[in-house]
Amino acid sequence: MSISISYIIETAGIVVFTISGAFSAMQKRFDAFGVLIIGFVTALGGGTIRDVLIGYTPVTWMRTPNIPILIFATGIVTLFFKNHIKNLKTTFIIFDAVGLGLYTMIGIQKGIQAGLDPGICIILGTITGSFGGVLRDILLNDIPQIFRKEIYATACIVGGVIYFILLESLNRDVARLVTISLICGIRLIAVRFNLSMPKFYA
Amino acid sequence: MSISISYIIETAGIVVFTISGAFSAMQKRFDAFGVLIIGFVTALGGGTIRDVLIGYTPVTWMRTPNIPILIFATGIVTLFFKNHIKNLKTTFIIFDAVGLGLYTMIGIQKGIQAGLDPGICIILGTITGSFGGVLRDILLNDIPQIFRKEIYATACIVGGVIYFILLESLNRDVARLVTISLICGIRLIAVRFNLSMPKFYA
Amino acid sequence: MSISISYIIETAGIVVFTISGAFSAMQKRFDAFGVLIIGFVTALGGGTIRDVLIGYTPVTWMRTPNIPILIFATGIVTLFFKNHIKNLKTTFIIFDAVGLGLYTMIGIQKGIQAGLDPGICIILGTITGSFGGVLRDILLNDIPQIFRKEIYATACIVGGVIYFILLESLNRDVARLVTISLICGIRLIAVRFNLSMPKFYA
Repeated sequence: MSISISYIIETAGIVVFTISGAFSAMQKRFDAFGVLIIGFVTALGGGTIRDVLIGYTPVTWMRTPNIPILIFATGIVTLFFKNHIKNLKTTFIIFDAVGLGLYTMIGIQKGIQAGLDPGICIILGTITGSFGGVLRDILLNDIPQIFRKEIYATACIVGGVIYFILLESLNRDVARLVTISLICGIRLIAVRFNLSMPKFYA
Repeated sequence: MSISISYIIETAGIVVFTISGAFSAMQKRFDAFGVLIIGFVTALGGGTIRDVLIGYTPVTWMRTPNIPILIFATGIVTLFFKNHIKNLKTTFIIFDAVGLGLYTMIGIQKGIQAGLDPGICIILGTITGSFGGVLRDILLNDIPQIFRKEIYATACIVGGVIYFILLESLNRDVARLVTISLICGIRLIAVRFNLSMPKFYA
Repeated sequence: MSISISYIIETAGIVVFTISGAFSAMQKRFDAFGVLIIGFVTALGGGTIRDVLIGYTPVTWMRTPNIPILIFATGIVTLFFKNHIKNLKTTFIIFDAVGLGLYTMIGIQKGIQAGLDPGICIILGTITGSFGGVLRDILLNDIPQIFRKEIYATACIVGGVIYFILLESLNRDVARLVTISLICGIRLIAVRFNLSMPKFYA
């Protein structure tokens, strides 16, 4: 996968996660500062937890100040154009799914670079993809959505497992592209058909 | 204390904390993924916070992939046999108390290894023993139980203080065994007689 | 700024943040242990997150055991003299504002020492000054106040930006003093006139 494509998708992922966080905060009547912080946490929380657990510090966004700038700019634009952005719902669902796939892949890569076991890498991919949303929900004082709503983190786990299977026979770049597409696809199908994991009650 | 006994108790502690977390999640109607994650966080959250604060990264469970496997296996068994497990209530309370003692001791040891002061080691022991439950309650969107219910973290603190006093005159292994038994005993007595710390209201 | 003045103000900041956290916990009927922990988290949570994100571990309070001792002593005094302390409301607001300014400055300094960009240093200052309160509110199961109430974190950000501008022309100690006074002043004016950031609703 060429660097530029990956760069564009990652940037799009950050933008989409920021906007989605910002909207959640506006629904709770947060002030402008709160909206920006929730956008920030939604976009970078998962990767931050991952970096801290691995011990990769200062965490990634501290070494690449362009990322916080991108997030705050996105948050401010969201505040001022909220009525226009709201209408782009379908666009968001798609970007969010693409972002999920890419974030998961980035997390898996960082785990491999740190010399960790495949199972641990899959956990790190899942954390990167979905724990920004968990932190967002904690700050909003809600039960994290990913524990009750449509398939989300499960897509990351399935994708991660498939990735390590594919690596046995495929070129790494091809395996990555297939995995990202798969995570994105599972997520879109889950949203479209309102699929969810079985619930258990004790 | 022989390695095998400590290993067996630690394994039992992980299993019990996982099951207790999984049940809390099922009571909130989480999906299967949510149940597994809450089990994971309950069992490993305290140790993870401890490792991150000390700077011992990648955190312990990332270096010992058998632990996550044990937890997920336990979580899946819990999902399928929930009705049988529910009846083992007394067994759990005992294992939970033993797990609390052992987790606390592990945390204190890690602090000593890092060259930290006794007071800080006791804090680390308390975090290891009781903050998995704090993270569990945050994710369940509840006020952490240990701040309001029967004596729990207090048992860790008392045990930690006694441990450092015992170390003055006793062999380390004996001091450990006495401490673990003490924490376990305080906890069981607190549950049995429904003892709690004094409450204050401002 | 001489070490002794900075030391006195930092100590006062720790004391005030501990007391404010302890009172929040008492309002929720926490037990004695819970009150002490919430005091601890309110006073040290922001600095702890900062240290973990930078990778400065073991975190500061683990290396300076006097700080936890000061906090627990303050917490215990608060429990026993809560009725007297309550009447000091104005005193607290002032100390809290001074603490906010100093904590922010400390965070910025740590960022500069770690060789991070000014923008990142400002974020670290803001985290140091205001995220202890965010952790407190999460543990109390409330929506974090700083996202909805009077100007708080915004004072840190404004102060941080001004600090880097002042550094261009002023001596570092003077720039620090001006910045701390500015953050403290913005906060006091916000409380006095009940100023808040604009709210947005999506």
